[in-house]
Amino acid sequence: MYPVEILTLFPEMVSGYVGQSILGKAQERGKLSVTATDIREYAEGKHRVTDDTPYGGGAGMVMKVEPLVAAIEAARARHPGAKVLLMSPRGPTFTQARAQELVAHPPGLILVCGRYEGVDERVMPFLDGELSLGDFILTGGEVAALAVVDAVARLLPGVLGNQASHVSESFEEGLLEHPQYTRPPVFRGVEVPAVLQSGDHARIARWRRWKALHLTQERRADLFSHVELGPADRKLLGLREEDL
Amino acid sequence: MYPVEILTLFPEMVSGYVGQSILGKAQERGKLSVTATDIREYAEGKHRVTDDTPYGGGAGMVMKVEPLVAAIEAARARHPGAKVLLMSPRGPTFTQARAQELVAHPPGLILVCGRYEGVDERVMPFLDGELSLGDFILTGGEVAALAVVDAVARLLPGVLGNQASHVSESFEEGLLEHPQYTRPPVFRGVEVPAVLQSGDHARIARWRRWKALHLTQERRADLFSHVELGPADRKLLGLREEDL
Repeated sequence: MYPVEILTLFPEMVSGYVGQSILGKAQERGKLSVTATDIREYAEGKHRVTDDTPYGGGAGMVMKVEPLVAAIEAARARHPGAKVLLMSPRGPTFTQARAQELVAHPPGLILVCGRYEGVDERVMPFLDGELSLGDFILTGGEVAALAVVDAVARLLPGVLGNQASHVSESFEEGLLEHPQYTRPPVFRGVEVPAVLQSGDHARIARWRRWKALHLTQERRADLFSHVELGPADRKLLGLREEDL
Repeated sequence: MYPVEILTLFPEMVSGYVGQSILGKAQERGKLSVTATDIREYAEGKHRVTDDTPYGGGAGMVMKVEPLVAAIEAARARHPGAKVLLMSPRGPTFTQARAQELVAHPPGLILVCGRYEGVDERVMPFLDGELSLGDFILTGGEVAALAVVDAVARLLPGVLGNQASHVSESFEEGLLEHPQYTRPPVFRGVEVPAVLQSGDHARIARWRRWKALHLTQERRADLFSHVELGPADRKLLGLREEDL
């Protein structure tokens, strides 16, 4: 059981997502638990205020440090050893390699979601790090936390029905994935490539690898810098599709 | 009113998220509409099958082309001129610049969410493009679609309470954001930096810019390749904090 606790001001932003489909089933099967904790529960006073205006002026509101730290400390007590990460554009960018590192950290994850202009900087010593989903600005960290949970959960043992099914996908091997086809054999005049209907498994594997290599070269040549291509791959990259 | 329609096999994965907080309020105020349409409604037959095994063999299931294309055509009829994007690791990576391009396309967005091993390649001619959230693998496109809706929505006129509040944030200007602080002035012995309590706005602005520049240099020097730094910024980069 891999525990994830999401600290947020909007638990309903995350609870709908995590209850469905593969994440929902993984929880039913006891492979994963995802809880959303309302940071407001850790705010003091009658009004349970969680944000305030920034020191030094400027637009927007900043999340107060006390409720954040109280929520983090309570979550750490519930999940000893779990990694506490703030979803933040200042963190390193989330990648498949980082998903693999996190899944290898079975005490689990505590993901802290900022909102508004940001969080009081004094929360930093209470974190194990920051993590960014990409170079874009979100209204808060919730959707970033959901993406991390989703990417990590599918790597947990027993979560995907077929263990083989995650190794052939985009990025897992460092390349974009080859095209896929299913029935019907003809859709609006467009046929499934004959090779895929040939039953010749070696030829199919070669065609798929050719497609993956050429698609990667065309769209994301930058990915090749992280992949060790063997002589067979280098030969496939030099071939035209009709010469396969 | 900027319309977004999300085509998915799991509408409940997205509906909880988009009803909350800033996205929920933007919809109440008529600035944005987000609908989630179940692709299964466009599948034929008693069982409304939406996926099938891949031609050529292999693990997992592939989303069938007919229900996808029928759902896309119906969504296009509802939102003429909207851009149809498949959330897919094969697409170009989503960035703040792309969010700004999309928000400048007021006919809106139709976001198609794949699941399983992928979608039948023959859907491609019915799309305007593909879009990737980043170099990681998700169980499906839903969380990627949510991130895109979120990043685009906050740029729509009238969605953020304070229009100034989105220009000073990370990436909008190409730099990481300076640290923020709010009350109390002392938290567990750590004080808010004196400069932010000085009331000297020119000094505060200079300190914040120094922090943004140095934080970017330390953590994401790659971002500087997209930013034009003036002489004042280059001078700040050469200074130590104590010499500010």
